[in-house]
Amino acid sequence: MTTKLIKQQACFGGWQQRYQHHAQTLNCEMTVSVYLPPQAEKQKVPALYWLSGLTCTDENFVQKAGAQRMAAELGIAIICPDTSPRGTHLPGEHDSYDLGSGAGFYINATQQPWAAHYQMYDYVSQELVQWAQQTLPITQQRSISGHSMGGHGALICALKNPQRYLSVSAFAPICHPRACAWGEKAFSSYLGSNTQAWKNYDAVELLANASERLPLLIEQGLEDEFLPTQLNLTALMAQAEKYHHPITVHQHPHYDHSYFFIASFIERHLRFHAKALLTQ
Amino acid sequence: MTTKLIKQQACFGGWQQRYQHHAQTLNCEMTVSVYLPPQAEKQKVPALYWLSGLTCTDENFVQKAGAQRMAAELGIAIICPDTSPRGTHLPGEHDSYDLGSGAGFYINATQQPWAAHYQMYDYVSQELVQWAQQTLPITQQRSISGHSMGGHGALICALKNPQRYLSVSAFAPICHPRACAWGEKAFSSYLGSNTQAWKNYDAVELLANASERLPLLIEQGLEDEFLPTQLNLTALMAQAEKYHHPITVHQHPHYDHSYFFIASFIERHLRFHAKALLTQ
Repeated sequence: MTTKLIKQQACFGGWQQRYQHHAQTLNCEMTVSVYLPPQAEKQKVPALYWLSGLTCTDENFVQKAGAQRMAAELGIAIICPDTSPRGTHLPGEHDSYDLGSGAGFYINATQQPWAAHYQMYDYVSQELVQWAQQTLPITQQRSISGHSMGGHGALICALKNPQRYLSVSAFAPICHPRACAWGEKAFSSYLGSNTQAWKNYDAVELLANASERLPLLIEQGLEDEFLPTQLNLTALMAQAEKYHHPITVHQHPHYDHSYFFIASFIERHLRFHAKALLTQ
Repeated sequence: MTTKLIKQQACFGGWQQRYQHHAQTLNCEMTVSVYLPPQAEKQKVPALYWLSGLTCTDENFVQKAGAQRMAAELGIAIICPDTSPRGTHLPGEHDSYDLGSGAGFYINATQQPWAAHYQMYDYVSQELVQWAQQTLPITQQRSISGHSMGGHGALICALKNPQRYLSVSAFAPICHPRACAWGEKAFSSYLGSNTQAWKNYDAVELLANASERLPLLIEQGLEDEFLPTQLNLTALMAQAEKYHHPITVHQHPHYDHSYFFIASFIERHLRFHAKALLTQ
């Protein structure tokens, strides 16, 4: 694994860094943005993984969420991967915002032309974690969060690997991708027409069989234009109730799907994760 | 004056808004970003004007500085104009990042082809203020701040109109534009070769004749790549000492010229302005 620190900038007493490394699971070079809080100068710190939404790169959260302030106060690193393989130029890869580049959906593709590169589930839940443990001054304590497509990613990574994360949260997640237009388009392209396979990457389905009851914290704006058609929060809430899975959902009048919404409530999520990360 | 609210998004309990209005001084349509804190629902609030740097629009500060959190806590509106006239397409206007569009330098051009539109000093210090007083739920209490070219803009607006602003601050300002490459290029294009005219828009020169001693707060990163060649902070500090002008300068090892630097210290500036704005 080759790794290059391509930029670092002082931020809230710590460092906002950007790395490039070769991802074997994806068979391409990937960039990763990392915030290291000031505490990391002297000791290893726990890490929050953040998965971004459609069209994003590793940089959107870093530039727009204002999370570094609380991460510095709490002593938590934040690790932000990109949202798809890059530089691969598969046929049609850059044709639409919701499939291909910027839209990896954090799943392992089985269909052509995607399967050779689009193994984002293995990348974020395994290779990225290994890379981070080898590269960064972090402990084994880790949590995961994300927004929209990345909220879906955070939920499935945690539900499928409850032993790997101490806490999970999401902002406006795509809760039930196998039953919304974004998910249907992505899953049929990446996974094919066998909809049984889709259930392996659907939070509502996975929650029914969760082996551990990792508490879920979810933030949702009620003016979010995607809430009625793409996000399916009510399906996740009903499933959590049915299976007695602990879930806390904060619903906010007026707020939309944007980073202004995330910035407004990121402090609550960092404190939530800190509680799990720092008491272990 | 025609005004259109083109977008508003909930943010920290208030509203991040974007307006379009016809600017008479610039003879073009301009966009303005405005943050209204939750307090503005019930009463008028004081306002901080923020002037951005080269290449920016009205949106960079809004998206990257994380200022809304403290503005909401303190009850201060933030008004962010664009950095130049737009949509005018003068010859050469879009050819370089440091002249023309995105680079108005907050001065009144006297030379062709710029003079017909590039009246940014009058726009930000007069027309924008009048527009804001007529349009927004704000009091007459106002302060001004900015970054880089916008730090220069904030300093000259306040030094030339100390009665109009209660406080002024700047992040990595171009302190002495008539004596750096950015300033020389812009001033010679906008103002012509008579360098006497340049002194009207140079903070170091204006400070010598300041009619009031409005305290200056300045933040500067010591790894800022533009500090040695473009910013001339030492000239401003020497002038302030010579003329007994109150100035507080915070210099930070490791920090660069970016929004990560601004975000790290914006809280201090908002509290500084709040002290002036909220005790009047």
